[in-house]
Amino acid sequence: MTARPIDGREIAARIRAGVAAEAAALERSSGIRPGLAAVLVGDDPASATYVKMKRKACEEAGLASRVIRLPAETSQEELLSRVTELNADPGIHGILVQLPLPTQIDERAVVRAVDPDKDVDGFHPLNVGRVALGELDETFVPATPAGILRLLDETGVELRGAEAVVLGRSAIVGLPTALLLLHRSATVTICHSGTRDLASHTRRADVLVAAVGKPGFVTAAMVKPGATVIDVGINRVTDGDGKPRLVGDVDFDQVSNVAGWLTPVPGGVGPMTIAMLLENTLAAARRAPGVMGAAEARR
Amino acid sequence: MTARPIDGREIAARIRAGVAAEAAALERSSGIRPGLAAVLVGDDPASATYVKMKRKACEEAGLASRVIRLPAETSQEELLSRVTELNADPGIHGILVQLPLPTQIDERAVVRAVDPDKDVDGFHPLNVGRVALGELDETFVPATPAGILRLLDETGVELRGAEAVVLGRSAIVGLPTALLLLHRSATVTICHSGTRDLASHTRRADVLVAAVGKPGFVTAAMVKPGATVIDVGINRVTDGDGKPRLVGDVDFDQVSNVAGWLTPVPGGVGPMTIAMLLENTLAAARRAPGVMGAAEARR
Repeated sequence: MTARPIDGREIAARIRAGVAAEAAALERSSGIRPGLAAVLVGDDPASATYVKMKRKACEEAGLASRVIRLPAETSQEELLSRVTELNADPGIHGILVQLPLPTQIDERAVVRAVDPDKDVDGFHPLNVGRVALGELDETFVPATPAGILRLLDETGVELRGAEAVVLGRSAIVGLPTALLLLHRSATVTICHSGTRDLASHTRRADVLVAAVGKPGFVTAAMVKPGATVIDVGINRVTDGDGKPRLVGDVDFDQVSNVAGWLTPVPGGVGPMTIAMLLENTLAAARRAPGVMGAAEARR
Repeated sequence: MTARPIDGREIAARIRAGVAAEAAALERSSGIRPGLAAVLVGDDPASATYVKMKRKACEEAGLASRVIRLPAETSQEELLSRVTELNADPGIHGILVQLPLPTQIDERAVVRAVDPDKDVDGFHPLNVGRVALGELDETFVPATPAGILRLLDETGVELRGAEAVVLGRSAIVGLPTALLLLHRSATVTICHSGTRDLASHTRRADVLVAAVGKPGFVTAAMVKPGATVIDVGINRVTDGDGKPRLVGDVDFDQVSNVAGWLTPVPGGVGPMTIAMLLENTLAAARRAPGVMGAAEARR
């Protein structure tokens, strides 16, 4: 068997085109242009790259984009006051504070300071609770788990009653992915560093989501034949010839001989994350006060 | 093998005595007497009984207790305005609205109207999110899941790395219990009505929590020898001689020959629920503004 690939780039491009069309329609009907603000503190090159990619994606989709750059030595008070300004700014519908933050800042306090109605990252505990309760129309689902579910939907694989195994229990990926799968009526098992006999779990998975951050962690022997495998890992490794390369948590070459569907890295989950962030920003703008039909959007 | 029973009555009595001692100490040191308000709408006899039991337990533990009785035809607006009054009342630290509510009232709107800092039932989405994130010192864990974890702790059974299987995914019992077990580093599987081959899951469970509402649903063949089995069901059945009797979701006689630990029904999880509600009310009072050491209590 050779696994069918799930083409995250193509699916993400389609979603982004859809967001562009919907955003243009929203602007025509209400005069409101969805706006995303990204707060970047310090000079972490990876963070700067992510923010740049998000900004570019916004611009391509016709969303307003603002980047607030703050120096590495910014105090928590100063950052919180910037967040408060953005909360009050009617031109900004989505706010993201790029993590990680410098050590003098309490990340949790910053995450909680973001207005839950503008929390397009879905990190605020109120939005986490709404995801846990399955109130998905009233929350923002974090972008990576939302992207994972979209990829699964694209395969057409039945989730109801499926055995779903999630490797990793992080608040940003593993846990919300497990909750979303549960709300789709999969039987969900959450595995993590404390799990014994991991392979006994992964081998019964119809749907296997790997979010562990270890290159090639999932081998062919750990995968049920025909399973749908979603690889969330993005690990930088060095090839034999000294060249850097990105690989996932799944041994792609091996597992593609066993799985039924498999996401590549890069080009699988990665591109979906920004697409779902744009969707969340569009949803935030639609729910904003003063938008026609806002009551319906909120239900 | 004959399973050792987990005596919820004895453990609950100990917790209630502890709450009584702590509440008395709090009153001596701060002048604050923890207070619980229960709102009862309509004439449902089971609801009336629960509220009466909670009031009695409060009084025995030296907590202030207030019951607000409203007629079955109370409007949502009226109920919300009562909740708002209680939110503002400094003598009330915990508020519970007894569910179910009459059909003209939107339960979700009422649950969300309760101040999260007084939400001793732990039903507000913000508190659900904090439980999901493992921020247990800043939330209220719903009483039944909290009681289940306490029973498990009393057995001394190691949860880290244990295979835990939860039957039922309700927002009040199954889901939060699964999240608490996950935060204790168990490998957690959540099963429900859509699960295929349920016994294959239950048979590998070191810890099995049954919250399905079906009398005798869990049979001996579904239980791993030596497992710790927590029976959350409270089902009213009629004996051969026509007498009503309470039974759990677990076939007690059968499963006690297989399990290592087993909770009885009645006398297992049931008594824990009110004890944990009292603990939550005490915690709410400790965190209330003006209480000495409140900053520490909140962390």
